[in-house]
Amino acid sequence: MSVVLPVKGLEGIIATKSSICWIDGDAGVLAYRGIDIHDLADHSTFEETTYLLWFGALPNATQLAEFRKELAAARTLNWRIYDFLRSVPHDATPMEVLRTAVSLLSLYDPEEKDSSHEANVRKGYRLTSQIAMIVAIFDRIRKGKSIIDPDRSLSHSANFLRMLNGVNPTETATRALDVALILQADHELNASTFTARVIASTLSDIHSAIVGAIGALKGPLHGGANAETMKILFAIEDEEADPVEYVKKMFAEKKKISGFGHRVYHTEDPRATHLRQMSKDLSHSAGQTKWYDMSRKIELYVNEAKHLNANVDFYSASTYTTLGVEIDLFTPIFAISRIAGWTAHVIEQLDDNRLIRPRADYIGPAYPQPYAPLAER
Amino acid sequence: MSVVLPVKGLEGIIATKSSICWIDGDAGVLAYRGIDIHDLADHSTFEETTYLLWFGALPNATQLAEFRKELAAARTLNWRIYDFLRSVPHDATPMEVLRTAVSLLSLYDPEEKDSSHEANVRKGYRLTSQIAMIVAIFDRIRKGKSIIDPDRSLSHSANFLRMLNGVNPTETATRALDVALILQADHELNASTFTARVIASTLSDIHSAIVGAIGALKGPLHGGANAETMKILFAIEDEEADPVEYVKKMFAEKKKISGFGHRVYHTEDPRATHLRQMSKDLSHSAGQTKWYDMSRKIELYVNEAKHLNANVDFYSASTYTTLGVEIDLFTPIFAISRIAGWTAHVIEQLDDNRLIRPRADYIGPAYPQPYAPLAER
Repeated sequence: MSVVLPVKGLEGIIATKSSICWIDGDAGVLAYRGIDIHDLADHSTFEETTYLLWFGALPNATQLAEFRKELAAARTLNWRIYDFLRSVPHDATPMEVLRTAVSLLSLYDPEEKDSSHEANVRKGYRLTSQIAMIVAIFDRIRKGKSIIDPDRSLSHSANFLRMLNGVNPTETATRALDVALILQADHELNASTFTARVIASTLSDIHSAIVGAIGALKGPLHGGANAETMKILFAIEDEEADPVEYVKKMFAEKKKISGFGHRVYHTEDPRATHLRQMSKDLSHSAGQTKWYDMSRKIELYVNEAKHLNANVDFYSASTYTTLGVEIDLFTPIFAISRIAGWTAHVIEQLDDNRLIRPRADYIGPAYPQPYAPLAER
Repeated sequence: MSVVLPVKGLEGIIATKSSICWIDGDAGVLAYRGIDIHDLADHSTFEETTYLLWFGALPNATQLAEFRKELAAARTLNWRIYDFLRSVPHDATPMEVLRTAVSLLSLYDPEEKDSSHEANVRKGYRLTSQIAMIVAIFDRIRKGKSIIDPDRSLSHSANFLRMLNGVNPTETATRALDVALILQADHELNASTFTARVIASTLSDIHSAIVGAIGALKGPLHGGANAETMKILFAIEDEEADPVEYVKKMFAEKKKISGFGHRVYHTEDPRATHLRQMSKDLSHSAGQTKWYDMSRKIELYVNEAKHLNANVDFYSASTYTTLGVEIDLFTPIFAISRIAGWTAHVIEQLDDNRLIRPRADYIGPAYPQPYAPLAER
C-alpha cells in the first residue's frame, strides 16, 4: 500500500530524522548541531567544525589537539593511489579521478570489512585527509609539477594549499579556504549527502557511500554549479562584455545563470553573505578586484530583475579564482569540505538504520501486456 | 515549508513517476513495461528483456539481431582496466573491485562528456558488456588462471560463463543464468536503482550513477542478501546440522535468516517461484540436490513458523552454487543483471529531470546554541 504523493524530486518530503543540520529556509538560517553558521565562520576552524559535525559538540582544547593529531596522522596514501594518479590522462575530469581514487582506497583500507561506528569514525579521519591529498596530488601531476609531501604540522587547509601550490600559504589565503570549507561542510539532505545515506542504508561500507556522494556532487545541479558560474565570468572577460548586458542576453535566450536561487532558501543563502564579504576582502588583499566587481554587478542586477538571491555557489567562484584555484578544482574542493558532513550523516544513518527504499508511481503500459512470440512481432 | 511525514526509509513514499516496472505487492506480480515476469522468464532472453526495459517494447527479429550485435561489439575493455584488475590484491572484495573498475571506465569512455539520451544508450551497451567482462576477468586473475577473450558469437550469458569458466557452457547452464538475469534485471525503486536516479538527477554522468548503484547493491540488506543465505547453507553443511534445527536455533538467538520477507511483497516474491523451480531442475540435472533440498526444508519451516515467504535471494543462492559460482560473485552477478534496469532508470530520470533533494526532520540541539570560545569549553 502506497501513500501517493506526486512530489517531483521529493521536494519538501521528510526522508529521515537527523540531529546534524538545521536549515530555516524562510529566515535564511543554517546551523550545525544548533550553532549558527555565522558563529562558526567567524570564530571556528574546519577541524573544530568537523569535530562538531561528527561528535555533536565543539571540542575543548585537549579534544581539538587530539583531533588535529588524528587528521594529520591520516595524511598518508597507499603507493597504489600514487600509481593510479600518475597513470590518469592529464585532461581527465578531476571529479572522476577523485571518485575512482576514493573507490580504490577501500581496497587498501586497514579496516575495510569493519563498519562499526568506531571504525567509521577512523575511516572518516582517513577519508578527510586523503580526499584533500588526492585533489592536490592529481593537480600537481597533471601540470607536470613535483608532488609535495604532506606537512603534518599544518592545519588541514594550510596543508592542502601547500600540497596544491608548493609554497606555504599566506594566513589570509588559509583563512579564506578554511571559511569556505566551514560554510560547505554540511547542508542537510542535499543530493550527495542523501545519496550517501541511501547507500549506507543497505549496510554497504562507508567508502561505497562516499564514492556515490562524489558522483552526485559532480553534477552541475549540485556541486558543479560554482564552476558554471565561473565559466560565465570568464566568458564575460573574454568577450570584454558588460556583465549586466551579458546576463540580460542570457536571460533573453532562456539560459540559466548558475549561482542564483536555492530550493531550500527563500531569502539569502546565509553562506552567500559570508562568501561575498570574503571574496571582497580577498580581492582587495590580492590587488585583483575584477572577479568580485563583476560578480557584484551581476548579483545586484539578478536581485532586481528576477528577485533571485545569490547562493553559496555564486561567490565561491570568484573566491576560489582569486585564491588561484583552477575552475575544475572547485567541485573537488567542495568534496574536501563536504566529506565532513557525509561522514556525519553515514554514521548517523547506521546508528539507527532502515533501508531507504521508496516506491514509484507506475505510468507505463497497463498490466498485463500480452507476450508476443518473436516471430509475431 | 515541509510536508512532515516521519516515514522511516521512505517506505511507501512515491519518489517519482516511472513507466518501467510494475509491482503489485499484494498479488505477487512483477512486470517490466507491463509484461509479466513469468512470461519473460519462460520465453525471453536477457537481451530481449534488456531491450524491453530500455526501449519500452520487445524487439522484432531485426531489432534483436541489431541489439545483440551492439552488445557483442561492446565486449572490449581499455588495457588500463586489465592492468588495474591485475594489480588488485587477490583477496579483495569483488564488488569493490567492480565499483572501482566501472569508475575507471569513465576516464576512458569515448563519450565521457556527452550525457545525451542517445549517448547514454550507447554507454548502456558498453556498461552492460563491460561489467560482465570485469567480473569474469577478475575471478580468473585472482585464481591464477588465464584470461579468456570474449566470444562475440555467443549470447550475453553464454559469453560470461565462458569467460568465467574457460569452457563453453551447457545449454542448461546458459539458460539458468539467463533466467536469473531476466528475473533480477529490474525492480522499480530498489535502493541501488534509487541511488542511480538521485545521482543522475544532479545531471552527473551515467558512470557516476552506476558506480553509486554498485556501492548500494553491495550492502547485505540489498544485493548482498543471497550471499548471506549461502553462508547459512554452508554452515549447516560444515556442522552436519539438521537444516530446520539450525534455523530454529538462529531464530531463538534473534538472528535474521537472509532470503525471507520483502518490503514490497506481502505474498510470494514471483521471482522466487521461478528460482525455486530452476534450482530444483538444475540440481537434478547436475546430480547434486543437497543445496536445493536443504533450501526447501528451510523454506517450508520458515513459511509455517514465521509466515515469511522466500524472496528472490533465497533460491538464487542454491542456483548459483549449483552453477559453480563462488559465493562472493553472487552480488556481482546481480550487478551484471541489474545494469539493465539501472540504465533504463537513469535515462528515464534524465528525460524529465528534477533534482532529488528531500528534507530531514531536525531533532538536534535547539537553534540557536551559544558559541563558546575555545578557552571556555
